[in-house]
Amino acid sequence: MGDSDSLSQFLASAVDAAHKAGEIIRKGFYQTKNVHHKGQVDLVTETDKACEDLIFNHLKQLYPSHKFIGEETTAAGGNAELTDEPTWIVDPLDGTTNFVHGFPFVCVSIGLTIRKIPTVGVVYNPITNELFTGIHGKGAFLNGNPIKVSSQTELISALLATEVTHKGRPSNPAVQVGTKRDNLTVDACTNRINSLLFKVRSLRMTGSCALNLCGIACGRLDVCFELGFGGPWDVAGGAVIVREAGGVLFDPSGADFDITSQRVAASNPFLKDALVDVVRQNL
Amino acid sequence: MGDSDSLSQFLASAVDAAHKAGEIIRKGFYQTKNVHHKGQVDLVTETDKACEDLIFNHLKQLYPSHKFIGEETTAAGGNAELTDEPTWIVDPLDGTTNFVHGFPFVCVSIGLTIRKIPTVGVVYNPITNELFTGIHGKGAFLNGNPIKVSSQTELISALLATEVTHKGRPSNPAVQVGTKRDNLTVDACTNRINSLLFKVRSLRMTGSCALNLCGIACGRLDVCFELGFGGPWDVAGGAVIVREAGGVLFDPSGADFDITSQRVAASNPFLKDALVDVVRQNL
Repeated sequence: MGDSDSLSQFLASAVDAAHKAGEIIRKGFYQTKNVHHKGQVDLVTETDKACEDLIFNHLKQLYPSHKFIGEETTAAGGNAELTDEPTWIVDPLDGTTNFVHGFPFVCVSIGLTIRKIPTVGVVYNPITNELFTGIHGKGAFLNGNPIKVSSQTELISALLATEVTHKGRPSNPAVQVGTKRDNLTVDACTNRINSLLFKVRSLRMTGSCALNLCGIACGRLDVCFELGFGGPWDVAGGAVIVREAGGVLFDPSGADFDITSQRVAASNPFLKDALVDVVRQNL
Repeated sequence: MGDSDSLSQFLASAVDAAHKAGEIIRKGFYQTKNVHHKGQVDLVTETDKACEDLIFNHLKQLYPSHKFIGEETTAAGGNAELTDEPTWIVDPLDGTTNFVHGFPFVCVSIGLTIRKIPTVGVVYNPITNELFTGIHGKGAFLNGNPIKVSSQTELISALLATEVTHKGRPSNPAVQVGTKRDNLTVDACTNRINSLLFKVRSLRMTGSCALNLCGIACGRLDVCFELGFGGPWDVAGGAVIVREAGGVLFDPSGADFDITSQRVAASNPFLKDALVDVVRQNL
């Protein structure tokens, strides 16, 4: 798993990279509303690419023997196969739709897996200036302060985060930004929400999977799940943070969490079974 | 409508009151997760009451001839009839479910109507420290900087905010906090969301009606609507801010906005007709 000193060093490097990428995101965030539609799409693409390049260059220079998986390089046909090697899994800009609209739920997500286990995690929202960090076995933190999951034991009193989105239409490239789902998924999503709504206190939709995981970690949210998101980069950073905050990560069906499956659920330990029961009825 | 000097004075007084109430909210916000369920309900009630008392006392001392409508006093059987007199309409804590969970979408909302027209508005989120203000004819501001609605012209590229919640169950008092809707409303809500989802880019649910209106005003959101919320206190502050930011406020059916109707929609001027078309099919 790497010794404790090197894990701390890995975390510090990831935090540096996240802060630098955060500056680029922050700059773009306040520009998007002043540019027109085509310009917005370009700005997302440029920001995404610039942040991923910056993070990869920063980490590759320090750790040349490590492997790298990123949303942008994978989309461009890069290798996304996860091995036992230390592997940095990066979403340079989670919440691209929010980014375009100036809705302040955007973040950089950086995770390091060692022997496929999420071991170091950084999720940084440069707009609210919230930095979530975690190291396997060393706890989870928000801006340096320890965080833990909620102590809610009743699903009926729980705040649930999930997302419903739809596949982009070819005629409208902007819709494709950050959405990769088909109509069937939407129907399944909304049916699931119909049946979940009476089982929880209330529903939140933020548009950022990584920030939802961090919301679980710091107890702002009690349960969350998402099906059919982009890839391991959406969850690699948040996974460590949730677990180190005392939370549990699992497949929405109740099976073990698989970082490559594009399906994730997270909660405090008390609510897992209740959430799985409800979601499973609608999978 | 009151002369310009007195309107500025009214706004300054409301901002003072919102800041003071914000201190109480901020203190409670970071406490709720450390107390148990019964304690949380008490903390919401106490915070709500303390903030409303503070705001009303502050404004009544300055403007003894004005009328006052508040969520708490109305719930306690106070008079909520809106007259032509200058009337302060106050939601001391919008987003009570978020408050309990520590989800950072909570605010104080203060509106002043004169001849029933929302004339001065203040919405303050003490957690993110965002202060939205507006005076009829004098523009809208976020932390002192002018704001305006988005320039989005296509509903399919719009970010929509709405809420689905359900009526509390008597056996679980916590569920009642901030939720006042019945099962029929939920079904109508989710049906509406099903049909809306394909018409917009994405959906956000924040849990605060007043902050959704401010999201429209500053262009973070393009369209929002809500049916069956608490009362005029949820919208009186945000109404001025939306309009002064160049937005439009209307009944989700397309009829004129009625502050007493518990129904509201808001958008930039380009998207109103498209939103009404879609919502009306499902009203």
